Amino acid sequence: MENSKVLVVGGTGYIGRRIVRASLAHGHRTFILMRPEIGLNIDKLQLLLSFKAQGALLVEASMEDHRSLVAAVKQVDVVVSAISGRHFLLQIKLVEAIKEAGNIKRFLPSEFGIDPARMGHALEPGRITFDEKMEIRRAIEEASIPHTYVSANCFAAFFVPNLSQMRTLLPPKEKVHVYGDGNVKVIFMDEDDVATYTIKSIDDPRALNKTIYLRPPENILSQNELIAKWEKLSGEVLERIPIPSDEFLASMEGTDITNQMAVGHFHHIFYEGCSTNFDIGEDGEEASLLYPEVRCTRMEDYMKRYL
Amino acid sequence: MENSKVLVVGGTGYIGRRIVRASLAHGHRTFILMRPEIGLNIDKLQLLLSFKAQGALLVEASMEDHRSLVAAVKQVDVVVSAISGRHFLLQIKLVEAIKEAGNIKRFLPSEFGIDPARMGHALEPGRITFDEKMEIRRAIEEASIPHTYVSANCFAAFFVPNLSQMRTLLPPKEKVHVYGDGNVKVIFMDEDDVATYTIKSIDDPRALNKTIYLRPPENILSQNELIAKWEKLSGEVLERIPIPSDEFLASMEGTDITNQMAVGHFHHIFYEGCSTNFDIGEDGEEASLLYPEVRCTRMEDYMKRYL
Repeated sequence: MENSKVLVVGGTGYIGRRIVRASLAHGHRTFILMRPEIGLNIDKLQLLLSFKAQGALLVEASMEDHRSLVAAVKQVDVVVSAISGRHFLLQIKLVEAIKEAGNIKRFLPSEFGIDPARMGHALEPGRITFDEKMEIRRAIEEASIPHTYVSANCFAAFFVPNLSQMRTLLPPKEKVHVYGDGNVKVIFMDEDDVATYTIKSIDDPRALNKTIYLRPPENILSQNELIAKWEKLSGEVLERIPIPSDEFLASMEGTDITNQMAVGHFHHIFYEGCSTNFDIGEDGEEASLLYPEVRCTRMEDYMKRYL
Repeated sequence: MENSKVLVVGGTGYIGRRIVRASLAHGHRTFILMRPEIGLNIDKLQLLLSFKAQGALLVEASMEDHRSLVAAVKQVDVVVSAISGRHFLLQIKLVEAIKEAGNIKRFLPSEFGIDPARMGHALEPGRITFDEKMEIRRAIEEASIPHTYVSANCFAAFFVPNLSQMRTLLPPKEKVHVYGDGNVKVIFMDEDDVATYTIKSIDDPRALNKTIYLRPPENILSQNELIAKWEKLSGEVLERIPIPSDEFLASMEGTDITNQMAVGHFHHIFYEGCSTNFDIGEDGEEASLLYPEVRCTRMEDYMKRYL
């Protein structure tokens, strides 16, 4: 069987560029949607050109031009969207194009986080992320488009080297804020591994119309375990400052909407344990069980880059 | 003689990242200033981490903290700044730190364009670029800091594939605007070559206290020659629409300041020929004569990436 042809939407983004690389590495004929919005963004353009030099095909189309989207979709078998959070709802246009084209064997919308189907109780204003993902899911399912949802949990770069501190991406030097007792289990994933699991799933009948949960056992860690790993690597001991749940939530007040969204998401992850506090049911599969051959990056190795 | 140790300021920027790569490739111990302004910019941070993985050293310092800058500068022999245009004047802080440190054998301020010393007549509002570069030059020379200025002329990505059209980075498909008769000679440079020549010059006594002009003969082309090269490569013939000088200048009116600056710069380059309308004097050297071993990218090859 020939490898599926894959169209990546959002292929210059943080996770999209990794999905493009994984797709090329796995031997898929890889197409990348090139939207007029690229404009004068030389970095994004040069990234696209570097993918082209590696064999990807750039397909010009606009989310505002249905005909161009249908034409793009008709060239491939699988569509993977990694469009950024600000533009989730644009994917309605993509769903409409896929429906009309009628040839797509699998569509993966932009998810790659906490499972939105379990976040009906999420806090405002951060819940918009989950609500919009659910809106896209409903459109996909109403159009009977074969799909896979990827629940990737926490991207390492944003949660691990900073020991899950907010408003920084760098390791703390003296003190570390600990959420509650710091013992809630959280799933941390190397972003390239997210892309690898994603590409592994696109042709897999076991992933058809299911959610793939990225949950390698060694990547399930509490914040305390994360801190201990960093202290061991760095040889430094950090002062731990616990933050009670209500105090953390109150820190949202009077701050900008980005911070309010972040506080809500951190609360769900680090106090409520929303990435780990459920069993995967009939409608899901666990990626590290499906693809045991993937050598998943462990967080102590991820952290070493920051030493 | 051991290779000089190089500190790059602005090492995640468009030209700075290429200078870091060239410095590493030429075997220099390479330091990159890591400023607190990196904040939550994950792309810049990951670029720095990738340089670190290749052997570069990240040095934390702030332009607002003189002591930290002096400490950074004291670790190296050469400082190359590729700080972005918006922040040119911040380099005054760097000059002060280099002066106090007293150990720097060569400083290259952020230039990499048209020689500002020849742009005393430049149009408002774009002349600010040249004026600020001259202000930094004066500070360097008043502090008697050994220096080299790099006049790199026109970066290919911004002037070549778009056939020097404004407001796009992509090749035109049917029509092309031609500046005047299209016969004014302009110098176009591959950005990686700019970085290579820059790094070649940092230890070269012939470049001490001089301006290095990047002027490889084969990279001196008129807009008409550029268009002809693209037509040959693409197999397409474009309709040429000439724009008289006064009409082009008038296009500045009522537009935003970025466009006004661009129109002024384009006018100097494509009507006045400011990159080629002078001979290099006693205070300058031509890079392709100094370093004939550099295999400079020709514009027909540069354009092929866009086919």
